[in-house]
Amino acid sequence: MTDTTSAPAHAMPFTAPTGTRHPLPAPELGAAVRADDRAHVFHSWSAQSLIDPLPVAGGSGSTFWDYEGNAYLDFSSQLVNLNLGHGHPDLVEAIRHQAGRLATIQPSMASDVRGELARRIAEVAPGDLDRVFFTNGGADANEYAVRMARLVTGRRKVLSAYRSYHGATATAISLTGDPRRWANEPGDGSVAHFFGPYPYRSAFHSSTPEEEADRALAHLEQVIVLEGAETIAAIILETIVGTNGVLVPPPGYLAGVRELCDRYGIVYIADEVMVGFGRVGEWFAVNGFGVVPDLVTFAKGVNSGYVPLGGVIMSPWIAAYFDERPFPGGLTYSGHPLACAAGVATFEVFERDRILEHVRDLGERIVAPRLAAVADAHPSVGEVRGRGLFWAIELVRDQGTHEPLVPFNASGADAAPVAAVAAACKRAGLWPFTHFNRVHVAPPLVIAEEELAHGLDIIDEALDVADAHLG
Amino acid sequence: MTDTTSAPAHAMPFTAPTGTRHPLPAPELGAAVRADDRAHVFHSWSAQSLIDPLPVAGGSGSTFWDYEGNAYLDFSSQLVNLNLGHGHPDLVEAIRHQAGRLATIQPSMASDVRGELARRIAEVAPGDLDRVFFTNGGADANEYAVRMARLVTGRRKVLSAYRSYHGATATAISLTGDPRRWANEPGDGSVAHFFGPYPYRSAFHSSTPEEEADRALAHLEQVIVLEGAETIAAIILETIVGTNGVLVPPPGYLAGVRELCDRYGIVYIADEVMVGFGRVGEWFAVNGFGVVPDLVTFAKGVNSGYVPLGGVIMSPWIAAYFDERPFPGGLTYSGHPLACAAGVATFEVFERDRILEHVRDLGERIVAPRLAAVADAHPSVGEVRGRGLFWAIELVRDQGTHEPLVPFNASGADAAPVAAVAAACKRAGLWPFTHFNRVHVAPPLVIAEEELAHGLDIIDEALDVADAHLG
Repeated sequence: MTDTTSAPAHAMPFTAPTGTRHPLPAPELGAAVRADDRAHVFHSWSAQSLIDPLPVAGGSGSTFWDYEGNAYLDFSSQLVNLNLGHGHPDLVEAIRHQAGRLATIQPSMASDVRGELARRIAEVAPGDLDRVFFTNGGADANEYAVRMARLVTGRRKVLSAYRSYHGATATAISLTGDPRRWANEPGDGSVAHFFGPYPYRSAFHSSTPEEEADRALAHLEQVIVLEGAETIAAIILETIVGTNGVLVPPPGYLAGVRELCDRYGIVYIADEVMVGFGRVGEWFAVNGFGVVPDLVTFAKGVNSGYVPLGGVIMSPWIAAYFDERPFPGGLTYSGHPLACAAGVATFEVFERDRILEHVRDLGERIVAPRLAAVADAHPSVGEVRGRGLFWAIELVRDQGTHEPLVPFNASGADAAPVAAVAAACKRAGLWPFTHFNRVHVAPPLVIAEEELAHGLDIIDEALDVADAHLG
Repeated sequence: MTDTTSAPAHAMPFTAPTGTRHPLPAPELGAAVRADDRAHVFHSWSAQSLIDPLPVAGGSGSTFWDYEGNAYLDFSSQLVNLNLGHGHPDLVEAIRHQAGRLATIQPSMASDVRGELARRIAEVAPGDLDRVFFTNGGADANEYAVRMARLVTGRRKVLSAYRSYHGATATAISLTGDPRRWANEPGDGSVAHFFGPYPYRSAFHSSTPEEEADRALAHLEQVIVLEGAETIAAIILETIVGTNGVLVPPPGYLAGVRELCDRYGIVYIADEVMVGFGRVGEWFAVNGFGVVPDLVTFAKGVNSGYVPLGGVIMSPWIAAYFDERPFPGGLTYSGHPLACAAGVATFEVFERDRILEHVRDLGERIVAPRLAAVADAHPSVGEVRGRGLFWAIELVRDQGTHEPLVPFNASGADAAPVAAVAAACKRAGLWPFTHFNRVHVAPPLVIAEEELAHGLDIIDEALDVADAHLG
């Protein structure tokens, strides 16, 4: 077997080479950036006067830095999109080249990079999925996937899971099973939520992963029957639940979902916006479970978010439904050439640098044992779970009762213990991903082994802060 | 007064310089592009087996070309987004530069180009609008504008116009007042449609533009009263209706809408996705009507679609509502730096090359008189209307009855007369924008005078085909 343990040649060391980072701290520039931002930029998901966005001066590989000279190892890959890190030379070059050739062309025409990216996606997509409808991001990918499912089935209802996130446009936020939906209700009245498997906090009083899978499937079937199977167009599921907990489905669950969909004539939509394109060491996470959905949605990792891009990968039977009937949906930037060029380059990098092997290797050899040791060392750690470069550390007040360190959807003072962990990480030079009572590990996939180990050391140390909040 | 009649220095002549276009016809490359496309790309708004997307090899300025060596003068600016034409050197350079600096950063941080673009937009936005929420395109801009309106008013209903297009995600397609909505219904049950002014086909039996404005406002007020003013969060209006007819509102109409919104506590959302950023010789079309909406949505022209970008420009009172309450919406690519860099470059080009003046000049001096002559010459032309570089030619069977040349929403054989006009344009080297019974004129804003005149000649000649379909 070839050596896959070393970092790709271009992976940046933790301290970026001189010259690629802002040459000197320039606080006055940072102040100007902050001033424009505070006066004129309205930020996502925020109370505008209660935030203080960090002015970012630059980035390289797995690191970014501000104008004060502070560098951060990015353990959140921005919003879990920056799979190939900042400033990846192949992606930068692809964008520069395509910008000079043809930045954009309308969706009704054919474009070489659009077609090539669609073909390459089809080559690695699960099963026989072979057609791609491109969108601008994950939210609209889910919107259009649901639309396709409704049209091909003639049914309207969609089932989605609690503890899920599917985006924030109207249909997507209705699908979402976390508190971000609440302020947007009433939403799509044809969405119903069910419980997915979550062995550590089982909704089904299970005691093993196998039992959790069986009971979660029995629950899902009950929901299908009681909602009316003949009214249900689709079930949408994050293959591995992302922001809501890195919930890896127990063995048999996804195959069971596939079987239920087949039995009841329901379209199975796999939301792979966060986990697709290598996050867990597979092109698509479903590939690792041997399951073939009818539709797969993607965004983020397809080109690391260098240019906004998302899409829906379609089964032939769904695409064929629209052979002679017009598909009633579209967007100006569908299959945007600049975005697609960065996607084609992503394929080239993944293959040349064996990114999938790198992710699997780091996950198994570095992250899994290190987080197991973290769990042993910290009384505040209830569970660690994940695969590849996608992990969650679940923080609790009590390892026996699993009482979370902070309440569900905590904010302000209630959230202080986790905020203190995050602050400790930042002081040590690591930008963490935290959500509710969890710290996630989701660095760029090109991270070097020594960067990864260093970042895990920082998290280990920061968890002392969580321990200190226990009774 | 300075000379604003000559084309900007970088505007490309109709025949692009040797070397910038595909060097030689390469049909075998085109065949490969077509093969990938047909096998793997799913296209917007189409019956997939009934289309034959043109493989596009390249573009420069107002022209693009295929692999067979056919060049087309683009009178549709792709989807009315390519305001600065293909391969604009300043936009290309801005993208190349930003790609190397920092292609992307998450929305919760501050970015120099994001803040600069927001500031520059605020500087030219109507009235005191000064805060920008960035999105990926026009559809999600409208989604989030409606969300803001619903939250600040505590009301849910939205009024939008028949003969409108606002995008294709769930809320946006419900707002849309054209047939693209139909297959997506039931949609948002809190949207009601009203009739806007359309003097040539008045819903109000008016005989002058002034009467049309008065009666359209009286109608709108009746709808407000009958829908329940206290239930209505927003009225959304394309300032000049785009795809559905280049409907320029008669004098007083928009001011009257503003007054009705004030009287009934309704948020006024101006959809400037198509007309913003210079299409009619103003930064925003509302600026030309002296009206200040509460929210303005934009996309397309902000960076000519070189990188997907859209947004909502917000009144201070709406932004302030979210100072201490979180805004419940967001997206991974909000304020995408690569997209914003192309937006900043757009401002620099507009100012340096006096694009707005160029548009007004060409519209008044070239297009208006030439289309008036076209109307005189062709019995199939019922009306020409527009301003700047945004015009419609309305084709009719009878100039007296205004019976359209093809039925509303015609397709297939019913649409043949307009399809024949489009085909004649393409044979002559012009890519037209047609919709129902209309031909629109919407070339890139950088078009040179001689290109524009040449294109209008082609349309004039192609309209002989329409004339031939008359009884």
